[in-house]
Amino acid sequence: MTEQTELHRVVIIGGGFGGLNAAKALRKAPVRITLIDKRNLHLFQPLLYQVATGGLSPADIASPIRAILRKNKNTRTIMAEVKDIDIESQKVFMDDDRVADYDSLIVAAGSRHHYFGHDDWSRYAPGLKTIEEALDIRRRILSAFEKAELSEDDTARRQLLTFVIVGGGPTGVELAGTVGEITRYTISREYSSFDPKTARIILVEGQTRILPAFDQKLSAKAAISLEELGVEVLSGSTVTSIDRNSITLVVNDKTDRIKSDTVLWAAGVKASSLGRIIVKNDLSLLDSSDRVIVDSSLALPGYANVFVIGDLANYSHQTGEPLPGLAPVAIQQGKYVAKLIKAKLTNKTVRAFRYVDKGNLATIGRSRAVGQIGNLKVSGLFAWLVWLFVHLMYLVGFENRLLVFIQWAWNYFTWNRSARIITNVTTIPDDRPKN
Amino acid sequence: MTEQTELHRVVIIGGGFGGLNAAKALRKAPVRITLIDKRNLHLFQPLLYQVATGGLSPADIASPIRAILRKNKNTRTIMAEVKDIDIESQKVFMDDDRVADYDSLIVAAGSRHHYFGHDDWSRYAPGLKTIEEALDIRRRILSAFEKAELSEDDTARRQLLTFVIVGGGPTGVELAGTVGEITRYTISREYSSFDPKTARIILVEGQTRILPAFDQKLSAKAAISLEELGVEVLSGSTVTSIDRNSITLVVNDKTDRIKSDTVLWAAGVKASSLGRIIVKNDLSLLDSSDRVIVDSSLALPGYANVFVIGDLANYSHQTGEPLPGLAPVAIQQGKYVAKLIKAKLTNKTVRAFRYVDKGNLATIGRSRAVGQIGNLKVSGLFAWLVWLFVHLMYLVGFENRLLVFIQWAWNYFTWNRSARIITNVTTIPDDRPKN
Repeated sequence: MTEQTELHRVVIIGGGFGGLNAAKALRKAPVRITLIDKRNLHLFQPLLYQVATGGLSPADIASPIRAILRKNKNTRTIMAEVKDIDIESQKVFMDDDRVADYDSLIVAAGSRHHYFGHDDWSRYAPGLKTIEEALDIRRRILSAFEKAELSEDDTARRQLLTFVIVGGGPTGVELAGTVGEITRYTISREYSSFDPKTARIILVEGQTRILPAFDQKLSAKAAISLEELGVEVLSGSTVTSIDRNSITLVVNDKTDRIKSDTVLWAAGVKASSLGRIIVKNDLSLLDSSDRVIVDSSLALPGYANVFVIGDLANYSHQTGEPLPGLAPVAIQQGKYVAKLIKAKLTNKTVRAFRYVDKGNLATIGRSRAVGQIGNLKVSGLFAWLVWLFVHLMYLVGFENRLLVFIQWAWNYFTWNRSARIITNVTTIPDDRPKN
Repeated sequence: MTEQTELHRVVIIGGGFGGLNAAKALRKAPVRITLIDKRNLHLFQPLLYQVATGGLSPADIASPIRAILRKNKNTRTIMAEVKDIDIESQKVFMDDDRVADYDSLIVAAGSRHHYFGHDDWSRYAPGLKTIEEALDIRRRILSAFEKAELSEDDTARRQLLTFVIVGGGPTGVELAGTVGEITRYTISREYSSFDPKTARIILVEGQTRILPAFDQKLSAKAAISLEELGVEVLSGSTVTSIDRNSITLVVNDKTDRIKSDTVLWAAGVKASSLGRIIVKNDLSLLDSSDRVIVDSSLALPGYANVFVIGDLANYSHQTGEPLPGLAPVAIQQGKYVAKLIKAKLTNKTVRAFRYVDKGNLATIGRSRAVGQIGNLKVSGLFAWLVWLFVHLMYLVGFENRLLVFIQWAWNYFTWNRSARIITNVTTIPDDRPKN
């Protein structure tokens, strides 16, 4: 047996913030890593809404995993989809009958949309998790304006110019704020048959206030900022149905049907189906979002070599409240698990995982953001600058960061958005959007 | 009747170089312009190969037509597909039963691929005309490397690592040279199970030399540059069949079947089908590529108010040889037609169209290009710098130009390509490429 096959084998599923940071932190460890992702890219999801609204291009916020890990000489990156995991025989099964054996497994497969039992809504109200979904949303928003320009019927035009965003968390707030900016500034003088400023933008939130994870005062400030951008905020509203050109809400026991051709979904996420696989359908190990309830070392209870991190994990820390599905959580968890694996190889021990909360930020639009860092609450231009700086620093790779910065600077001074192109039309020879 | 309806109505079909330049040149004329395009974007086609090879993002080389024409107060831009044209009643028929009446018509609908009677080849050998096709080619090239990494069969891997580009004109040369650079430099150390330098890249040309529109010496220099990048140049080769994983050529009466999973088509173009519509199927008015043979004022013979410009036009000038399908030809023709329409409104006359040849350039790769400007022939770094400068200057909009320049500068110094991401996977929920 060669030395290489005797090395401790680490399999990482997922090239998001968690998986990538685990791999990087194991770069010099005496292990053999296989990182499996169904895509060839790491996506900087916090900025995906910028792609959906034509401010950035997909490649500005995505890098090939292979390129990011070029210096990881102990890592093999493979693009494949994981179909099954056997935690007894320690095997990961991929498509095309490929199998990877592991000594330690890191499952960092993330989350997907959750329509709360209404999967049929996904056709009419796309979510924002992948590049394709972002381009689909971009196409829908921009096509609605193009169709409104051609419409000769006031009711139809009204319906085309009504945008409903479901979900008042950071993603929903960002989407609504940006659509507001586009209609009020970017395209305000580009159409002949209607005034884009008359577009109606509605943000729907089930709870009593938007950004419920933030302090109440910041929620209120965010709502005011949104209203300045022309967004109507409907809190305490429950969605009861969505179809091709309308959404029905219940607000204070009253049912309201809003005619809209463009409904976007930012309301809920559910963990990857790999969670169910590794708990072998033992639902007591899953929370209501299908996240795996992990132990204090982020391992699956009873399996000290199977780690679950990032959006797929439910780690309750001291507070009892599970950690949120944010990039900093996944990053810290990825690094922690790498440290733990290295420690185990030399029979050392590591303390329980502890999340260091660096704060929470949400942007609403140009110069508008809210944030809380410990007890400090910030809003307005300062919060926006902090948000800008933090996101640029997190972006993977020097070039991406610079390009994004230039585009933002340009957009800031001109109100322009450089990626307002309708792509991803599916038919290749006749390439006009058909919807 | 209001004054507005009395204005001379100009309908422009196509927002490419020809149509856009006609509209811009008519900006201050007392006319009412309707520009119709099936896309919302103007595409800078000369750089589309950079998108196909992961160097640039679609939005870097595309801008919304509406944004470009924001200052054209007399222009209405509509996104629709033209289905029919009646040159007797002077009407343009679009989808959804929309009709536009015109006094002057400018048809600038461009060209599409031509598989010389083998349309079935288009499935296996995509061409490079639209953003979607560029992203499809990018996906095919990058996926071939990912699949090669996973392949355990030498023959299959060989086939995955063989890239055939059909057509030795500028587009084919650019594609082949760039794939050569990628395998020799960009990704040379990113894969574990094969050496990307062993990839085979074959450029197939039917004529006896590549770049037949250039001087013979420059063709020879381009061939040498390509060979330095690992590209095999097969001139005098006729393609007889293409299927999912092979291409068959006849070279010097010998048949050769090359096993390859990635065949790209850059061999021929055919004018838009609108040409056939406006000549009412009178084939004597079309050349063999379906281009409309126009008179000395770029008008359809017998219809002084119907102009055909750009790739759709066959204008033979003094030489007898039709002008090539290049951006400068379309730009000059668009401006000429605008000038002619303005002159007619004041009963002035304009001389016959004359193309001012500013030269011809083709790039092969980093620091490698060939060009001829009048009798001057240039090659190597200088030609490449000229090519770079000319293309940046032509790019529409300041921001795009700057971003493209930064990406190029970065790519130049690092051999990196920032847009090496596989996107445009068609299924939305399960987003892994299936091919």
